[in-house]
Amino acid sequence: MRRACDSMKTEAAIRELIERRADAFRAKDVEGVFACQSEDIVQFILAPPLKCAGRTTFDRESMEEWFASFQGPLGYEVRELEITATDEIAFAHSLNHLTGTGTDGKESKLWFRDTLCFRQIEGAWKIIHEHSSVPFYMDGSLKAAIDLEP
Amino acid sequence: MRRACDSMKTEAAIRELIERRADAFRAKDVEGVFACQSEDIVQFILAPPLKCAGRTTFDRESMEEWFASFQGPLGYEVRELEITATDEIAFAHSLNHLTGTGTDGKESKLWFRDTLCFRQIEGAWKIIHEHSSVPFYMDGSLKAAIDLEP
Repeated sequence: MRRACDSMKTEAAIRELIERRADAFRAKDVEGVFACQSEDIVQFILAPPLKCAGRTTFDRESMEEWFASFQGPLGYEVRELEITATDEIAFAHSLNHLTGTGTDGKESKLWFRDTLCFRQIEGAWKIIHEHSSVPFYMDGSLKAAIDLEP
Repeated sequence: MRRACDSMKTEAAIRELIERRADAFRAKDVEGVFACQSEDIVQFILAPPLKCAGRTTFDRESMEEWFASFQGPLGYEVRELEITATDEIAFAHSLNHLTGTGTDGKESKLWFRDTLCFRQIEGAWKIIHEHSSVPFYMDGSLKAAIDLEP
């Protein structure tokens, strides 16, 4: 029973972390987002390059710039969240909806897939790997499928 | 020490599973690929829809069709593989290179990001979640970045 209890406790902690991170995105709070991540996070994000880690880290400055391209707060919804947790590591996947108004006044909205992998670091759960993406159309266009909905 | 040993044993099992799966892709062996997955796998794949699970499963027929669009065997390289494993669950991420010759004679090659999440089911490690993607260009084109290299 101890193991099952630990897993449920981890799942609750992971759910809280994901909610806290969504709040940080909504508030465009760079430090809040970074507080959810390990320092050596490996990220596969929506924009190039293929991989952000070490030298190619998606850093505070990049995130500040990205947040600054929107007016006011962002919308950030996490749907179909599924968490698999043990007392040592965990992973989660969901479909996330990002909405906002650009500084040019254009409304933008995007559903994307998000996979997060976690581990405890000095007693706190942190995201050590993130994979965010949209699929792409396999026709001649090869366009990102930014118009999909769950 | 028991826990550390278990983790190393899991890591070896996961590495073997990933190699076996790459071999199955190379041989266009549909059953070989499916043998690595749990029956209720949740997939975020390169092509739409956003999510393949349950009703929208990426099934044997879809995979057979996809394999049939290539002449001969495929190339499938797994690079920068990092595995995080415990005795209960595990996750891994890598940059994968898929190469092949279409039935139309066109060579195709693609580097994509792959995140896999695992759990033991009836004593065997299985992929319960897969997330494969390429990023997309955030310029006016919104094209999938299929020309990137690690």
